[in-house]
Amino acid sequence: MELLTASIITIGDELLIGQVIDTNSAWMAQQLNLAGITLSRRVAVGDEWNAIWTALDQELNKADIVLLTGGLGPTADDITKPLLCEYFGGKLVMNAEVLAHVTRLFEQVYKRPMIERNIRQAEVPDLAQVLHNAVGTAPGMWFEKNNKIVISLPGVPHEMKGLMTNEVIPRLLSHFQPPVILHRTLLTAGIGESFLAERIHSFETNLPASIRLAYLPNYGMVRLRLSASGYEKEKIRQQIDEQFAVLQELVADVLVTNKDESMDQVVANLLLQRGETLGTAESCTGGYIAQLITSASGSSRYFKGSIVSYANQVKTDLLNVPESVLNTVGAVSEETVVQMAKTALQSLKTEYVIATSGIMGPGGGTEEKPTGTVWIAVGNASEIMAKKLQFRFDRRRNIELTATNALNLLRIFIISRGNGKTNSH
Amino acid sequence: MELLTASIITIGDELLIGQVIDTNSAWMAQQLNLAGITLSRRVAVGDEWNAIWTALDQELNKADIVLLTGGLGPTADDITKPLLCEYFGGKLVMNAEVLAHVTRLFEQVYKRPMIERNIRQAEVPDLAQVLHNAVGTAPGMWFEKNNKIVISLPGVPHEMKGLMTNEVIPRLLSHFQPPVILHRTLLTAGIGESFLAERIHSFETNLPASIRLAYLPNYGMVRLRLSASGYEKEKIRQQIDEQFAVLQELVADVLVTNKDESMDQVVANLLLQRGETLGTAESCTGGYIAQLITSASGSSRYFKGSIVSYANQVKTDLLNVPESVLNTVGAVSEETVVQMAKTALQSLKTEYVIATSGIMGPGGGTEEKPTGTVWIAVGNASEIMAKKLQFRFDRRRNIELTATNALNLLRIFIISRGNGKTNSH
Repeated sequence: MELLTASIITIGDELLIGQVIDTNSAWMAQQLNLAGITLSRRVAVGDEWNAIWTALDQELNKADIVLLTGGLGPTADDITKPLLCEYFGGKLVMNAEVLAHVTRLFEQVYKRPMIERNIRQAEVPDLAQVLHNAVGTAPGMWFEKNNKIVISLPGVPHEMKGLMTNEVIPRLLSHFQPPVILHRTLLTAGIGESFLAERIHSFETNLPASIRLAYLPNYGMVRLRLSASGYEKEKIRQQIDEQFAVLQELVADVLVTNKDESMDQVVANLLLQRGETLGTAESCTGGYIAQLITSASGSSRYFKGSIVSYANQVKTDLLNVPESVLNTVGAVSEETVVQMAKTALQSLKTEYVIATSGIMGPGGGTEEKPTGTVWIAVGNASEIMAKKLQFRFDRRRNIELTATNALNLLRIFIISRGNGKTNSH
Repeated sequence: MELLTASIITIGDELLIGQVIDTNSAWMAQQLNLAGITLSRRVAVGDEWNAIWTALDQELNKADIVLLTGGLGPTADDITKPLLCEYFGGKLVMNAEVLAHVTRLFEQVYKRPMIERNIRQAEVPDLAQVLHNAVGTAPGMWFEKNNKIVISLPGVPHEMKGLMTNEVIPRLLSHFQPPVILHRTLLTAGIGESFLAERIHSFETNLPASIRLAYLPNYGMVRLRLSASGYEKEKIRQQIDEQFAVLQELVADVLVTNKDESMDQVVANLLLQRGETLGTAESCTGGYIAQLITSASGSSRYFKGSIVSYANQVKTDLLNVPESVLNTVGAVSEETVVQMAKTALQSLKTEYVIATSGIMGPGGGTEEKPTGTVWIAVGNASEIMAKKLQFRFDRRRNIELTATNALNLLRIFIISRGNGKTNSH
């Protein structure tokens, strides 16, 4: 079975000096995969004619579809459009529909006068089919050459996303009718990658050739993914579901979810099912858990708020942590997080609470409490569970791991609530 | 002048199905640039022998240095090490020093027994120089072939970073003694990319050939960067400083900072210089501003905490927003954010405060207050300034833009405090 393959070329000097992180490619990869298109390579090049030309040649040589993003803005370092025009042998022409759209955007949305550069954004290569960019001024472009497709999209994330969803994916599906790719993903916590690999070694070895297993470790958890592709959708589905059932059995004790969802989504769904709410009292995570939860739309149904007590004074004033506790056992202690949790539960009037206090680094560690020492607490009105963690990573990762571990502890607490737990208060 | 060029190859199926975002490459690019090495391409390929081999061939053909990350873990989908061994024509041998290091890590840090897979991580190609990975089990590897360098690093971010800083960069500098690359970066806010380009068009056209200008729009701001490289460091420095002085003059009215720093760093530095503190009262940003500020180490010197009032009840209970205000003008209103700001200032006992309330989408908008409507307030004990914003992006970007705008308003407030402002309370 021949796979339909794609390459993504991202264009921009900013990608090569590291001033921005490329989040577009990951999102585009997801959309292509869901559509049954295998992404085989991603390439990033600078705003240079020869570099873009060479990348286009190379990727077209390997893939059926080449998607370019970036290099379509109104400024002088954007050269993708004239390059594509020359590459496919046409010329730039003013497109009346695009011009009308750009004019309307400036009049009705931006409410600013257009300048020459904006008008020129309505020029497109005559050999391209124009893809309508509903939310921006740079149109997408679709070229066909030797049974291959080249698509150029603006680099602004929400413009690229609108074009992918409304134009690119539907056109690719209708053009190629690609094979189905199915993924089954589960998330484990509390077991290292090596030990997991050892445990499922024989399963992995005996997988049918049509199914691949991948390990995706992240945030101290390991995601396992089975992938299968082909044209007989029902047969593939049955095969992958059979293997996935076996895999779930093998990791039952460390399984967080058998869906492709993150830890915060798992907790959100638990709360939604129960019609219950959560609040947080955060010291070392500084609001990270609250913003993680509220990054999901609809989170107001299960999240009420947070008291971020970065300073000890705030722990005393708003969370009733006694100064005597802070002066003796300190802010990074079981007593402190338990008190933070108890007060936040009352102040925020929620069913559940998460509290965190720790030393995220790089500074602040002592011999007794080295950098990476964290206390977390979770619970409800009848019981608070606390746990000490020790990380040895950089600040960003220590914060992320604290959030993941706290959410996992809450998940376990919610599922097992009512059962007697250790470390209870 | 011949530039020393590098390519980065990132390896892993997870990059091609979009399950993780590649943050490693951006960081590596920064480090290479600072060392005077021009990154010319970044390529991502899956865990497949031929794909990695081809990428290695292609990138070695173009660049002086090829850095590979990923594919060195203990699991079966990691094939980089045997591939490099075959590519360079050697064989895998057990390295006693690496084995001793891995053994020590398991005994003293992980406190778990080693299994066969872990031991095999101490095997390295006999033609490679081993780069010591102080914080992980997978060693880095350094190969030389035809005056070119190939470096293989683990994909775990903090392991990769340690190896880059302690091993790779020092060795590359000593091996190549590359030209200097200098960048000068400034940040503007409140002017669109096209208008900025129009304003500095003649400056850009008249730049000497040795200096390049790039536009880096992000979060509703535009960063401008001048770059120059060469061997005569002092001459280059003088040239770029002269042009940078001209550029600063041209954008003086919209200039946020003339350093390569983010908006939150600018605000942090202002607060540090004044020895003053900040707290936040966040509704629609849900703790995003607090976590952004506390993601910087040392932020406890200027940040005390936040009251995240996602639910209206929390706005009433903890921030004294009257129910009558919520029931009439609503949570997304000037009255609400001003009251949130005033109470937070008192509760958190800080010199300055930021408050936010808005509709981030996709749901929740009305005709009167469409999705993207946001009220922000900033101020101190004598004055609160409020401002209404209207965004038209997705949820994530609306949250980020709210944070940036609120921090910028606070920056302007701090700089101009004492002067009479409009919209004061």
